[in-house]
Amino acid sequence: MDRHDKISPAVIRRLPKYYRYLGELNKSGVNKTSSRELSEMTGFSASQIRQDLNNFGGFGQQGFGYDVENLRNEISKILGLNKKYRIIIIGAGNIGQAIANYTGFYEADYEVVALFDKNPKLIGMSVRNAVIMDCDDLEEFLKKVKIDIAVICTPKSVSQHVAEQVAKHGIKAIWNFAPKDLKLPDDVYVENVHMNESLFSLTYYYNKMKNENE
Amino acid sequence: MDRHDKISPAVIRRLPKYYRYLGELNKSGVNKTSSRELSEMTGFSASQIRQDLNNFGGFGQQGFGYDVENLRNEISKILGLNKKYRIIIIGAGNIGQAIANYTGFYEADYEVVALFDKNPKLIGMSVRNAVIMDCDDLEEFLKKVKIDIAVICTPKSVSQHVAEQVAKHGIKAIWNFAPKDLKLPDDVYVENVHMNESLFSLTYYYNKMKNENE
Repeated sequence: MDRHDKISPAVIRRLPKYYRYLGELNKSGVNKTSSRELSEMTGFSASQIRQDLNNFGGFGQQGFGYDVENLRNEISKILGLNKKYRIIIIGAGNIGQAIANYTGFYEADYEVVALFDKNPKLIGMSVRNAVIMDCDDLEEFLKKVKIDIAVICTPKSVSQHVAEQVAKHGIKAIWNFAPKDLKLPDDVYVENVHMNESLFSLTYYYNKMKNENE
Repeated sequence: MDRHDKISPAVIRRLPKYYRYLGELNKSGVNKTSSRELSEMTGFSASQIRQDLNNFGGFGQQGFGYDVENLRNEISKILGLNKKYRIIIIGAGNIGQAIANYTGFYEADYEVVALFDKNPKLIGMSVRNAVIMDCDDLEEFLKKVKIDIAVICTPKSVSQHVAEQVAKHGIKAIWNFAPKDLKLPDDVYVENVHMNESLFSLTYYYNKMKNENE
């Protein structure tokens, strides 16, 4: 059994934040840090941070703090950023192309190997080094090429169909930008980026604040 | 005092989901629904849904359920989707342009009135009906035009500076796509879309699942 088995999703969501801030400290030439300093940067309490990191063995020394580079490397390994991932993007419209150009992929060895679209005007074009292929060729492609992550940027009317196609061919990780929940077998992990929900929450809090100040 | 004052952010985050599913029911010609049906669609428990909606007065009738269109309208009003919002996008690279083309803005009266960039090749171009203006003219623009929401799609090295500029000119709502937390006065609401954190969580769970199945 994996020792990370019982770690709550909230902890996992905080790790990328720690990773990001440690990267900033590293860039500024800072070698040592403390849970208190990380607390000031991230807004999480120092005890929360210590507790989070203790899930993975701690990495700190009492009265000494954390070695910035070492801690960043350890978090990188926990998240799996030290490995290589092959990615396809399905839907090569605005969002799909923006994702293909997404600089966050350089943080680790994420490689966008192809995009897929059904628009004949897009098929054959390249985004960065990845070519846009015909959606009709997606299943043939997946029979031959091992892909780790599928990014779904299609209209919501076809996102479920596309998700089933990629799941059928063994893809276990889906990054979903289509504004519709996907129903897939339990062994496929779906990470949703529901921009509508984000925008509507913003709208709610904007109005709430305006009302309070009137 | 606003009666929504004590509603937890988790409830607010679920409202856009209800709104979305009610829209789908409405489109399929369904007039009535129940917390049980909404539970099957959303994955939240029926009692959770009833409790969420009770925060705002309920809207349902015992043994009768919810009127789909009415409930959707009520949620729309709670979120503020029945109003008009003027938006600027700062950073007109891939993400900025994708946001300008984002169809989610049609869900309510969100109007992208301008984009800003410092790249002379982009300045003067249009995305949909909005022109890309020079970042140097941002503050002058904000003195003359009332803007509700600023979307930050700049590199993270300048996102804090840009956020301070827009906050200085009275913008109270920021949708932040730059991978860096913003430090702003408490009366400015920031909604972060940290794509890195989403991608890294996906990566973690992908590896976890792979390890469990090996």
